[in-house]
Amino acid sequence: MKYNDFYGQYFPFWNDLSQEDKEILCSNTSAVCFEDRQNVHNNLECTGLYILKSGRLRLYILSEEGREITLYRLNPGEMCMLAASCVIQSITFDVYLDSELPSECYMIGASAFGEVSERNPSVKIFALEKTVERFSDVMWVMQQALFVSLDKRLAIFLLDEISSSGDSRIAMTQEQIARHLGTAREVVSRMLKHLAADSILEINRGGIKIIDKNKLRSIAY
Amino acid sequence: MKYNDFYGQYFPFWNDLSQEDKEILCSNTSAVCFEDRQNVHNNLECTGLYILKSGRLRLYILSEEGREITLYRLNPGEMCMLAASCVIQSITFDVYLDSELPSECYMIGASAFGEVSERNPSVKIFALEKTVERFSDVMWVMQQALFVSLDKRLAIFLLDEISSSGDSRIAMTQEQIARHLGTAREVVSRMLKHLAADSILEINRGGIKIIDKNKLRSIAY
Repeated sequence: MKYNDFYGQYFPFWNDLSQEDKEILCSNTSAVCFEDRQNVHNNLECTGLYILKSGRLRLYILSEEGREITLYRLNPGEMCMLAASCVIQSITFDVYLDSELPSECYMIGASAFGEVSERNPSVKIFALEKTVERFSDVMWVMQQALFVSLDKRLAIFLLDEISSSGDSRIAMTQEQIARHLGTAREVVSRMLKHLAADSILEINRGGIKIIDKNKLRSIAY
Repeated sequence: MKYNDFYGQYFPFWNDLSQEDKEILCSNTSAVCFEDRQNVHNNLECTGLYILKSGRLRLYILSEEGREITLYRLNPGEMCMLAASCVIQSITFDVYLDSELPSECYMIGASAFGEVSERNPSVKIFALEKTVERFSDVMWVMQQALFVSLDKRLAIFLLDEISSSGDSRIAMTQEQIARHLGTAREVVSRMLKHLAADSILEINRGGIKIIDKNKLRSIAY
């Protein structure tokens, strides 16, 4: 049974399942690959539960005018329940999911997962708990977006980027950074120029290079 | 057993519980009363699960500078899990709960509820589902706060108020309205004066009276 070993390690409830339920989940899994910056889920249909094997995905909300706010990113080994809103009926909001790097996922079809979770309370509890964890991430983003000034948020964002990659170079366009922060490119561009004038960073063709991490930290915190 | 009849009607899982678990929940319930505008829960401790019998409670987040954003209100018959974050471990954000009217609640102690929910998957699923429902409410508030202009949000707020009370008078101070919208009193005051100049509402000592609901609606939608 393909995926059996992986799921045995991945899901804490795997050993509670009947052989039949294990087979339902495995046979309804597909391995899907995405290019860099491709739309994975656009909320038009309830696709299923994504487990990220490699790459990076970004989950965001979108306003009618096309403004985006990143709610969180998925790193390898992480799972996204919010694209399976038909499984968790109480989710009534719209999210979008894009790849930020070439990405490989396992996707368990929503109806198969829903069927197994109806029969197994431990599966349902797992899915709900994963969703509530994301609730906490989203509250953090919300408090940042509502209460923290944009220059602080930009500084925090840049510090997070270099600390997660371990590289002082950030290969993102100003447009991409603006999307993460839910603001306009012009605003980010102006703030980056100020930071460059203070010798905190350099702006190159390929992106940004942080020069003075300590000064950036003093803005962020 | 006090509360047994009420819980039998209130909780869908009640009949699944052992007699012992029913007794644990009942004996750890307290009836608590709050005056108008009193703090119910201030996030310093994990109190428990509140069920509102009468009155109205308001759940909000607070910035370091004291700005508030209302996440949702509880009406009679509704329940608040977010003040019991120790029961649902994945909740790691801070919320505050105030009464908006004289209110009467039943409060089930967090540790008793946690203990019973560990033994009974149906209780745990109920608690998690109620939490995820609120996630959707909060996402709506977040999208409003981030994407919708303040004059629209004020108009929507005023329309919601008169439609839920059935009265064209709104007995709230400008300070209170500002808190709901997460903005300053001066901003609300200025917007209300504009609306009064357009004969959409009247500002009195005791609050606001909506005169032209249709015009207000055209601002909101």
